[in-house]
Amino acid sequence: MAPMYKLTYFNVMARVEPIRFLLSYGNIEFEDIRIAQENWSKIRPSTPFGKLPVFEFDDFKTNQSLAICRYVAKRVELVGSNDIENLEIDAVVDTVSDMRAKTFVYTHERDSTKKENLKKALLEETLPYYLERFEPLAKSKGGYLAVGKLTWADIYFVATLESLCPSMGKNLIENCPTLQNLQKRILNLPGIKEWIAKRPVTAE
Amino acid sequence: MAPMYKLTYFNVMARVEPIRFLLSYGNIEFEDIRIAQENWSKIRPSTPFGKLPVFEFDDFKTNQSLAICRYVAKRVELVGSNDIENLEIDAVVDTVSDMRAKTFVYTHERDSTKKENLKKALLEETLPYYLERFEPLAKSKGGYLAVGKLTWADIYFVATLESLCPSMGKNLIENCPTLQNLQKRILNLPGIKEWIAKRPVTAE
Repeated sequence: MAPMYKLTYFNVMARVEPIRFLLSYGNIEFEDIRIAQENWSKIRPSTPFGKLPVFEFDDFKTNQSLAICRYVAKRVELVGSNDIENLEIDAVVDTVSDMRAKTFVYTHERDSTKKENLKKALLEETLPYYLERFEPLAKSKGGYLAVGKLTWADIYFVATLESLCPSMGKNLIENCPTLQNLQKRILNLPGIKEWIAKRPVTAE
Repeated sequence: MAPMYKLTYFNVMARVEPIRFLLSYGNIEFEDIRIAQENWSKIRPSTPFGKLPVFEFDDFKTNQSLAICRYVAKRVELVGSNDIENLEIDAVVDTVSDMRAKTFVYTHERDSTKKENLKKALLEETLPYYLERFEPLAKSKGGYLAVGKLTWADIYFVATLESLCPSMGKNLIENCPTLQNLQKRILNLPGIKEWIAKRPVTAE
């Protein structure tokens, strides 16, 4: 039987790896379509708001990676058990997403001097600011980022590091034992372990 | 009885007006705390991740405006009736949020020449790109932005325009009859109408 879900993105991990992790966690098969940069302009007019990823099933088609993650998280039962828990989870996810977004200008900068300066500020100030707060947060929540149990906030965080660390050329959580432990546990979850073994190897 | 919810932000509409709209829609009283810019550095260390808004009730305290909106939307019954509807709503909300985020650099630019150039690009290209897509979307969904009925996506969009239009110095939906009609209906909802009549007058 053909997979129900079709996920279209570029051939990178970036903001879509959390969706691939969540689907894999739940052993949900999906069509993992990776389009080449040179074909993007042809495909773009058919995408909602001209954006990737596109997530499709039945007659439904949408963009927006966080919205897609939240939907898949419900399917694989990694959401909270009530509205307040989901508020806590959503706030962590949005904060991880904010942290990642801070690297956007650096990633797209082509001038090498400017790029080095941006990298320095990110590695010395911006990213540590977040990680120094995520570490005690996880410590206070039994080793998870929200509500004291495994949720999609943890998967989202660890899958984000998969591309963020190589793109920054550094293990960003090297001084964060609680987050390292969380990462290790997530990367060893059966469905995710299988996904990592079979996924295309990409730089970011 | 004291209001259950406490919402702390600066004295602007910006990204928090959608939360105020949603609470007002549901006739939920809230403490509307507006801090002066000069007091921010004193308050900042007590906020999660050093960010406003902060939303508090009972022992719970969080940042992240979108997460807060989604929680309040559940309380006031403006969410979808199933996971797929909520995916559709979440994707619209994130797209409205992306549109607003495009104005961030412009809003914070102090050099007047650079600011004018940024404004021109926003008014001639960036913002019309989104609005030219929201207009037919609303037309295809019975006058709403998602799932063919009133949801928090509509409130989020209209409340965002409350600050975005003045900050851009333009009625951004002047060529969008369906969105204008949606705006009119939202601004006339009893709880929201009362809120607008009593809220502090701010520029953005």
